[in-house]
Amino acid sequence: MKGIVLGLNPSARLVDLSRQIPPQNIRHAAFFLAAALPYFPPGTLHLIVVDPGVGTERALLYVEVLGQRLLAPDNGCWTLLAQQASDDPLVIRLTEPRYWRPTVSATFHGRDILAPVAGHLSLGLSPSLLGPRVRDWVRLEMAAPVREGDAIMGEVIFVDHFGNLITNISADILDRGAVSSQVQIGVTIVSRWVRSYGEAAAGTLIALISSAGLLEVAVTNGSAAQTLCAGVGDRVRVGREEGDRTCSPSL
Amino acid sequence: MKGIVLGLNPSARLVDLSRQIPPQNIRHAAFFLAAALPYFPPGTLHLIVVDPGVGTERALLYVEVLGQRLLAPDNGCWTLLAQQASDDPLVIRLTEPRYWRPTVSATFHGRDILAPVAGHLSLGLSPSLLGPRVRDWVRLEMAAPVREGDAIMGEVIFVDHFGNLITNISADILDRGAVSSQVQIGVTIVSRWVRSYGEAAAGTLIALISSAGLLEVAVTNGSAAQTLCAGVGDRVRVGREEGDRTCSPSL
Amino acid sequence: MKGIVLGLNPSARLVDLSRQIPPQNIRHAAFFLAAALPYFPPGTLHLIVVDPGVGTERALLYVEVLGQRLLAPDNGCWTLLAQQASDDPLVIRLTEPRYWRPTVSATFHGRDILAPVAGHLSLGLSPSLLGPRVRDWVRLEMAAPVREGDAIMGEVIFVDHFGNLITNISADILDRGAVSSQVQIGVTIVSRWVRSYGEAAAGTLIALISSAGLLEVAVTNGSAAQTLCAGVGDRVRVGREEGDRTCSPSL
Repeated sequence: MKGIVLGLNPSARLVDLSRQIPPQNIRHAAFFLAAALPYFPPGTLHLIVVDPGVGTERALLYVEVLGQRLLAPDNGCWTLLAQQASDDPLVIRLTEPRYWRPTVSATFHGRDILAPVAGHLSLGLSPSLLGPRVRDWVRLEMAAPVREGDAIMGEVIFVDHFGNLITNISADILDRGAVSSQVQIGVTIVSRWVRSYGEAAAGTLIALISSAGLLEVAVTNGSAAQTLCAGVGDRVRVGREEGDRTCSPSL
Repeated sequence: MKGIVLGLNPSARLVDLSRQIPPQNIRHAAFFLAAALPYFPPGTLHLIVVDPGVGTERALLYVEVLGQRLLAPDNGCWTLLAQQASDDPLVIRLTEPRYWRPTVSATFHGRDILAPVAGHLSLGLSPSLLGPRVRDWVRLEMAAPVREGDAIMGEVIFVDHFGNLITNISADILDRGAVSSQVQIGVTIVSRWVRSYGEAAAGTLIALISSAGLLEVAVTNGSAAQTLCAGVGDRVRVGREEGDRTCSPSL
Repeated sequence: MKGIVLGLNPSARLVDLSRQIPPQNIRHAAFFLAAALPYFPPGTLHLIVVDPGVGTERALLYVEVLGQRLLAPDNGCWTLLAQQASDDPLVIRLTEPRYWRPTVSATFHGRDILAPVAGHLSLGLSPSLLGPRVRDWVRLEMAAPVREGDAIMGEVIFVDHFGNLITNISADILDRGAVSSQVQIGVTIVSRWVRSYGEAAAGTLIALISSAGLLEVAVTNGSAAQTLCAGVGDRVRVGREEGDRTCSPSL
């Protein structure tokens, strides 16, 4: 893919973003893109090739959202990012083969379609020439946290490189809710709230707000995923201690 | 190595190609280079450091083939790529220490020889100054598929990042042969031919033509290598169903 | 982090150095930096984010040493590099928030402090504006080899990507000492001294001098770490054969 882009535009600047997204894992890609892309300069072109549907009828899209430009399969990988935007995204379906490689394989559209389109766009091609604007696209279903009495029930949506468990419970929700502070993942009570990992001794199970503003369960200098054998989909509860609803919050 | 190149030529443009070639795996490197390098602009200089023989008498080579330029150990890693070329490669043995680091370690020729030579070449040094042209080099032995009756017998030559099993049986051979379509790996019959992964339900064992034009055995949204516990060297048979040679092809 | 740097300085040149440092492993980072950074052009700015203490009171530093410039947490990760310098390093503590992102998270100072400071420095900002010069910083405790009779006792300080075991015993010490040549790791006698991996048959347990000038125990075309189940901290002895101190060296 890099060769194709540089063949079209020898002065294109290429920046590697991540090579650690697990194969076919659209949800992981979605979380990664939502966390990383807002920090890039406006107009940066991002090329995403997490594409389990390659070769099927799934569309390929050009997207403008949050000032960023993306080329991506229509599998929802960018829609978590788009939730941060107040404006509607501009979405174009790639249908114009004149900007693709002459021969398109059935299994590597990143090389044969997205990379040459990226090369042309980097040279100033108008996105409107790539295909028709569309109003409908695949949206990633991401479980929303729910309130149960005084508690908030959410789940782990992402496990990062360090084994930290990031949940779908945002700091905003926690601030607004009149909940007490005990965090529970599965049947395990998280022992301590901290602002940052290093506040607790190595090996402590901690709860904190992640750099993306989400409740995170971690182990200082360790891996919460391994320690708890936990992963995406595991239930997380934030609220007063169960069985003793009259006691004061431990925070 | 990047520091050495940039020290000689601060405006050199560096592009990472792969950090996932298993240690010492020349065969893996050979397949990777054959699949990736033809897509780079003519004249691109590629530096290859899969080098189990570092510090021994094995040569280091400068190669021009398929319009690409390579610096690589003489261990056959580039000869699979060269099979795609109609012309003979230009091959020069690196013997001129004036283009190397003043002190050459016995274990890191990538840093001490290949990187400084790459820096000098990127500044316009004529390759003919690097050493003598040679006509003999190590060729990678890669098993060729063989015809047995109506069937083609090949083997897995590469397992990619996704666990897909790529064989030495090219689409060309399949098209030319009057074979029927059943694919068998070890004792397992592959259930379905597809054009792309997403055509079959998740978990289906499939056969398809890879983006490099080779027969590939895969599992949709999974890893064929793990599912079948299969790897490089495993036998693959393409032909009529065994035991019932008169039945019609299942394709 | 790359987005933040490029947002401040669109023409900054970014080079990936390593993505393989194990999480929180300051010692691994220290060894890596000491081995790699001296080969970069003078004035190169290196950004290090191995930072288990993020969000605590640990300082963030700007360092000039060996002609290189570093931005790093004050956790000792650069002090092994500094041991190679004859001059004292220039060390500045980052205290001026005007060069940081407006909002600083408690868990990602790489993105919120180091990356914007790197962007400003790449545009020519004087380091003296970043904060006060300091004379005290965290030094990494690295066990020094000791002499016991005719033998040198050291330990494994680093396991590289290939599973090679690098020790704290430098070639200089070996040359100066009147020791005989048997190398022992744990209870295992290393069978052979070589100059480079390929001199011994595949699978041979070998001792050699690494490309960074340190005694290294390796397995030709294999992993000494896996073969010996060995790792950082394991004892290494270089000396005459124990139990027969009068016999001649095997070298």
